[in-house]
Amino acid sequence: MRLFNKVAIIGVGLMGGSIALGIKKKKLSYEVVGVSRRKNTLLLAKEKGAIDRGSQQINIIQDADLVILATPVSLILKLAPRIREFVRPDCIVSDVGSTKKEIVSKLEKFFPNYVGSHPLAGSEKRGIVNVRPDIFKNSLCILTPTKNTNRLAKEKIRRLWNQLGAKVVYMSADMHDEILSFVSHLPHLVAFSLIGIVPQKYLRFASGGLKDSTRIASSDAGLWADIFLSNKRNIIKATELLKENLSKINSAINKKDKKLLIKVLREAKKKRESLF
Amino acid sequence: MRLFNKVAIIGVGLMGGSIALGIKKKKLSYEVVGVSRRKNTLLLAKEKGAIDRGSQQINIIQDADLVILATPVSLILKLAPRIREFVRPDCIVSDVGSTKKEIVSKLEKFFPNYVGSHPLAGSEKRGIVNVRPDIFKNSLCILTPTKNTNRLAKEKIRRLWNQLGAKVVYMSADMHDEILSFVSHLPHLVAFSLIGIVPQKYLRFASGGLKDSTRIASSDAGLWADIFLSNKRNIIKATELLKENLSKINSAINKKDKKLLIKVLREAKKKRESLF
Repeated sequence: MRLFNKVAIIGVGLMGGSIALGIKKKKLSYEVVGVSRRKNTLLLAKEKGAIDRGSQQINIIQDADLVILATPVSLILKLAPRIREFVRPDCIVSDVGSTKKEIVSKLEKFFPNYVGSHPLAGSEKRGIVNVRPDIFKNSLCILTPTKNTNRLAKEKIRRLWNQLGAKVVYMSADMHDEILSFVSHLPHLVAFSLIGIVPQKYLRFASGGLKDSTRIASSDAGLWADIFLSNKRNIIKATELLKENLSKINSAINKKDKKLLIKVLREAKKKRESLF
Repeated sequence: MRLFNKVAIIGVGLMGGSIALGIKKKKLSYEVVGVSRRKNTLLLAKEKGAIDRGSQQINIIQDADLVILATPVSLILKLAPRIREFVRPDCIVSDVGSTKKEIVSKLEKFFPNYVGSHPLAGSEKRGIVNVRPDIFKNSLCILTPTKNTNRLAKEKIRRLWNQLGAKVVYMSADMHDEILSFVSHLPHLVAFSLIGIVPQKYLRFASGGLKDSTRIASSDAGLWADIFLSNKRNIIKATELLKENLSKINSAINKKDKKLLIKVLREAKKKRESLF
């Protein structure tokens, strides 16, 4: 099912590359072009069949009817004004940034057919080498349309994600950023912090628990600095909530209130087990 | 290599059952007997070849030359005085409790041949059903001898763990409890707390990051309440350190100090990656 004539993916990493590969495999566009700062990335993307053509020059996106910004958050914000001159007025523009409020408010001013999206997929591994066409299968993709969003553009973006295997959920950018601060951003922040405070010489005694709970601390530092900065208010709020909760648990420990402690841990365990 | 004539395992769960199974497989004792409150556990342990005989009565441990307490921490402390009358003076007594200071100080008063141990193995899964003979392979086992510890007993316990596949490390109970508060206890506390504060209705948006970082929150609540209470001082100290570190990171976020933020995240990432 051809949805587009020419799709341009800006940033051919794990996310952009997987989208490109999915579009090619499902034949959702006549042509897929990629933009990257690195020549090697483009060569590899072509070799993997994710793109038909690639360029380090932004003007390759000209005449596309869909442009997807798939770079880290801060680069999405930087690139948006710079690609304007190459984007046709009827071209649909989307992005896959992990925060939405800042991006949506800026990008919808630049592009009449902008639709913000955030596929809840991915991994701590990055780059075109880790690309998989099935990465979105059975995943959720959040779209954050506003009252200004073109309905046809929104509908086409929904169909694109459905074709890539994702279930689409709509919500405001504000709601997105609050939810993600709890289910993704804070867990990452805590993982970085938790491994950060372990004295180096104790690391050899790390067992599975520490390894699992800090696996996401091996995620890219620049990418996550961007996300934290772009969702500042929510992240600070969620962190404060965690700190209060830790203090509450510690107070039960300090008072040797085993009954309360078990109650709190049991509720957490039950919640965790409801996750799948 | 027969190290013992009769080994008695009190508490035939994941840990006790795996030790029993390892001893049987390696033929380290002529006989292995098990004590459990539940008849089913004993039947299953026998069926799995972990024990020769089992009983709900403690007197089955009589005449053992090695007794291992493999119950949750609070039960180890409760059982110790109650098993005294059945333990021969020359019998080696050990335990596999996750905290050591409280246990070692009490148990070495009761038993002249006591050696505290803590195998750094296991999982959030419990019980005899999850037992595996290779659970200790390539793991570390911490022994916490004191100046009072019998040298022969210490040597035999070391050989036991080596035979089960573990590398033995000696340290004081104090040092053990401090190290474990960082590499195991705090990560568990944080996992319970982190999942605890996520609003129920946001859980459907949980991706791999939250799932991984809170997997250990599905560990047993009673077991972990015991551990937290028994390592109170160290856990409270480690939690305070984490809260300070979270505040530091949040302050960098608040000041939009991207350079500092990236530095902190990079150091954490590097540390995490050294864990493999």
